[in-house]
Amino acid sequence: MAYEPRHMKWWGWGNEDVEFDAQAHPGFWPYARAELGIERDDFCRREWKLETVELPEPFLDERFLVKLASFLKPTQISDQRKERVIHAYGKGFRDLFRLRRGLAIGAPDLVVYPESERDVCLTLRTAAERDVVVIPFGGGSNISGCLERMEARRMSVSLDMRRLRRLLAVDVPSCTARIESGIFGPDLEEQLGTYGMTLGHFPDSFLHSTLGGWIATRSAGMQSDRYGKIEDMVVAVRMVTSEGVLATRTVPKSSNGIDMNHLCIGSEGTLGVITEATMRIHPRPESRLVRGFLFPEFEAGIQAMQECVRRECRPAMVRLNDPDKTALSLAFRPPASGLSNVLSSLFKGYLRVRGLSLPRASLMLTAFEGTQAEVARQLRRAQAIYRRVGSISLGESSGKSFEATKYDFPHIRDYLLDRDVTTDVSETSTVWSNILPLYRDTLALLRATILESGVRPWAGCHISHTYQSGASVYFTFGFRQERGCELEQYLRIKRAVQQSFIDHGATLSHHHAVGTEHLPWLAADISQLGVKAVAAIKRGLDPGNIMNPGRLQPCSNPFDRWM
Amino acid sequence: MAYEPRHMKWWGWGNEDVEFDAQAHPGFWPYARAELGIERDDFCRREWKLETVELPEPFLDERFLVKLASFLKPTQISDQRKERVIHAYGKGFRDLFRLRRGLAIGAPDLVVYPESERDVCLTLRTAAERDVVVIPFGGGSNISGCLERMEARRMSVSLDMRRLRRLLAVDVPSCTARIESGIFGPDLEEQLGTYGMTLGHFPDSFLHSTLGGWIATRSAGMQSDRYGKIEDMVVAVRMVTSEGVLATRTVPKSSNGIDMNHLCIGSEGTLGVITEATMRIHPRPESRLVRGFLFPEFEAGIQAMQECVRRECRPAMVRLNDPDKTALSLAFRPPASGLSNVLSSLFKGYLRVRGLSLPRASLMLTAFEGTQAEVARQLRRAQAIYRRVGSISLGESSGKSFEATKYDFPHIRDYLLDRDVTTDVSETSTVWSNILPLYRDTLALLRATILESGVRPWAGCHISHTYQSGASVYFTFGFRQERGCELEQYLRIKRAVQQSFIDHGATLSHHHAVGTEHLPWLAADISQLGVKAVAAIKRGLDPGNIMNPGRLQPCSNPFDRWM
Repeated sequence: MAYEPRHMKWWGWGNEDVEFDAQAHPGFWPYARAELGIERDDFCRREWKLETVELPEPFLDERFLVKLASFLKPTQISDQRKERVIHAYGKGFRDLFRLRRGLAIGAPDLVVYPESERDVCLTLRTAAERDVVVIPFGGGSNISGCLERMEARRMSVSLDMRRLRRLLAVDVPSCTARIESGIFGPDLEEQLGTYGMTLGHFPDSFLHSTLGGWIATRSAGMQSDRYGKIEDMVVAVRMVTSEGVLATRTVPKSSNGIDMNHLCIGSEGTLGVITEATMRIHPRPESRLVRGFLFPEFEAGIQAMQECVRRECRPAMVRLNDPDKTALSLAFRPPASGLSNVLSSLFKGYLRVRGLSLPRASLMLTAFEGTQAEVARQLRRAQAIYRRVGSISLGESSGKSFEATKYDFPHIRDYLLDRDVTTDVSETSTVWSNILPLYRDTLALLRATILESGVRPWAGCHISHTYQSGASVYFTFGFRQERGCELEQYLRIKRAVQQSFIDHGATLSHHHAVGTEHLPWLAADISQLGVKAVAAIKRGLDPGNIMNPGRLQPCSNPFDRWM
Repeated sequence: MAYEPRHMKWWGWGNEDVEFDAQAHPGFWPYARAELGIERDDFCRREWKLETVELPEPFLDERFLVKLASFLKPTQISDQRKERVIHAYGKGFRDLFRLRRGLAIGAPDLVVYPESERDVCLTLRTAAERDVVVIPFGGGSNISGCLERMEARRMSVSLDMRRLRRLLAVDVPSCTARIESGIFGPDLEEQLGTYGMTLGHFPDSFLHSTLGGWIATRSAGMQSDRYGKIEDMVVAVRMVTSEGVLATRTVPKSSNGIDMNHLCIGSEGTLGVITEATMRIHPRPESRLVRGFLFPEFEAGIQAMQECVRRECRPAMVRLNDPDKTALSLAFRPPASGLSNVLSSLFKGYLRVRGLSLPRASLMLTAFEGTQAEVARQLRRAQAIYRRVGSISLGESSGKSFEATKYDFPHIRDYLLDRDVTTDVSETSTVWSNILPLYRDTLALLRATILESGVRPWAGCHISHTYQSGASVYFTFGFRQERGCELEQYLRIKRAVQQSFIDHGATLSHHHAVGTEHLPWLAADISQLGVKAVAAIKRGLDPGNIMNPGRLQPCSNPFDRWM
């Protein structure tokens, strides 16, 4: 069998042999303990026993299996325990919490690994004939509840796309590449690298997510400021449905009626399976520079970001932490990192002289890309804007430490789950004029809601993904679990944040999809008629409702689905 | 009644008191005569008599009219001859040819002028109840056959949106504006100008088209290289349907499932009526510079355009004429224009020294915008790239003459129609690697197809609207009419060009919509399943099929609809 990327550990983020290295981040746990008010420190390492996980009774349609075996090899089909558990969920808090409690009620009955578009077509056709549910699966990194099975009365198949991982064609002069959808981030970048090109899409999940998953969920990478969100990168797409293949043409722009690319993008597996896409790619930048800056306060940082957009001075990445998220970043830093000196007493003295106080200071990380001359010019222009609001540069080493650890952050959640702490994120986007009201109100509400469950709240926020009209606003929060009602506690808090987004005119998510967790706000976000439109498309392309049923269609009691 | 923009003359382009001024362009007619092989010159000015135009027998549903009168004022409803004729067609060749022959078979039975979203809601609801067809009408400038009535068995209403023309709100820090859809280009720019802002959308039809029309047809302005196509500018939209209002939120980007903005954009009036949109706007540039360049050949110009994109050196506009289009531009120039000296013998000598020969030379027009320093920098960078392939600058006056006459070009068609000459345009977009093959093959086929009807062909092309992956390829052509079968002759020629686009992997149109004329290629462009998806959306949002029926839905004999 061809090489295929490994599955993540079923009980957490990342490969089985990788976990959060507390020694490498010695400041983190003391910070978290103090912030969250955790007294005990006698947490012991747990063993995760696959055998004890409770799975739904397998529902296997014999005629479906016989037909499947007529066009797939035995190595493409599995009903083994481990495969079923791995494909039961994504990596949201609810997912991991349940798995760690030995509950895999969302598990499919069967896992299928197609190796060609034909395999996908035949599987879908057969599934439609036999009324079998199909849930497309990329890297399984989704955190909004896009992947678990929602119903038990039909057989359910997880369609794992990782074997469709070829780079089919590269048109270097046109900066486009035709790519199979199951390819993972590192594999894709390595293959494009041989042409001197990059897709420029680096979400936090980069190591563990696929092109198809990015497109189906309207993903955003860290460098979206330069390369755009995934929807800006799609030139053409092929999506297999039970009714046939929807295919668009490799043209830069068109006026051919309703844009069919945008029917596939964001469809979250509810219409069909994206098998390949032609993507905009870019020459690898000659030079890349990441640099940290400290702003006297969050508001000054936002002002600088907005001014940069206004003046068309656009770093490839810009991420501004609020004071609490700044404190977390400083606590998270490796001992010999560029951020260490920020906490030195010498530096604190310097900050005071410059009028900065660490408790109010906001850390911004920016990346610049291009030719060396362009990078230098961009940095000069950005720095001039930043300086005007009183920022100071933290030098090159601050950027290096970000680069070295940028994909490590999701591991913290497992480490904290081991310590009975729930952490999660909720993010949205809004226009510049609304960022501060949204930020202040949501943060206050978030803290108050956590406090209501009798525990100390930790909540921070960062602004990233800037656009001419606004930016993404991204909250991270954590709290000690209320033993015995961890899911209810989580639901209450998550719900408060999401409701605040909608109440403030923002959207349910900037880049994490609707899934199960954001479904209660879909009608408020896209209007009742929008929901009706989605249902109409679904009826047209998936008349048997076999594709990821229950998603993108609000039900009467959407919060029930959370539990 | 409030001010409202004038209707264009029913028999041609532009206001009734404006027409092509042959005196101001003395070189044009001699050039056209010679190129097209026209011997006679005794064409006399025709009088257009509204009274003689043949209209379909009005089909008026009494109960519909009574209901309409209950919520609309008498000044909002008209069944007068002139109103019906004006709303019968857009401004394509087929449209004007038929009107000039006194045929207005596409005319609606009634014209309604809503003055609020409520008027639109009530009109649509009433129309749905009474099975009355509604065709939204903006400026009426469409040239692809989007506006004529396609069926006679139901009453048909043209919904003219020009009275919904308010700028509802401007959020200067967020660079967004909420705007009613019936506003015309000049009115919008004037109102935004009071805030120091611009939309940056300047299609050739700017003077005579509306925001709603731009969105419904996926329009592109001349400066799309800087500001994007209209679909890139829409932040949020409200579309009234017979089933309710589809409304999206004012957020820069989202991950809320299938993007509902893109359901409204390009819907060509088949789902509902766009009543308002929140658009990305921009500070007016401090400085603007238009400059002409002459390239030794078309290929060199394309190479320079592509190199500019690759190096992220992006003029706000770039338009490269092939040698024939260059000759047309030179013939069209006003006598004292900056292009005049190009034809001087002194200049020709200079060209020879520089290795340029006028018959092969290609004219490029570029516009730069920004602060004065930015404009200077952009010009310097672009010129360096242009020079490398042997271009020469034509100086500032060449740009001024373009600016002075940029909206005049559509008037030529009327002038030539008066002289029994058919002219039209067909445009597409494709990736960089495909531009030259598409250009050469299509041009050869176009000329051959014109020749087949026994007349001399004139055909030229320009490349514009550059993207990282490609550009728009825009053909202009003209020929003497075959008396008695003008429409058949046009159909044959137009069909050959469009078929060539599709055969070469390009799209049916880059910015002129599907309408009637491009419908035969819709399934080839967006796939059969794409057509099915459009039908599904239509069934969901317009179950009575009252909205612009027949559009975006290929029928068994689509070419019949052309005649």
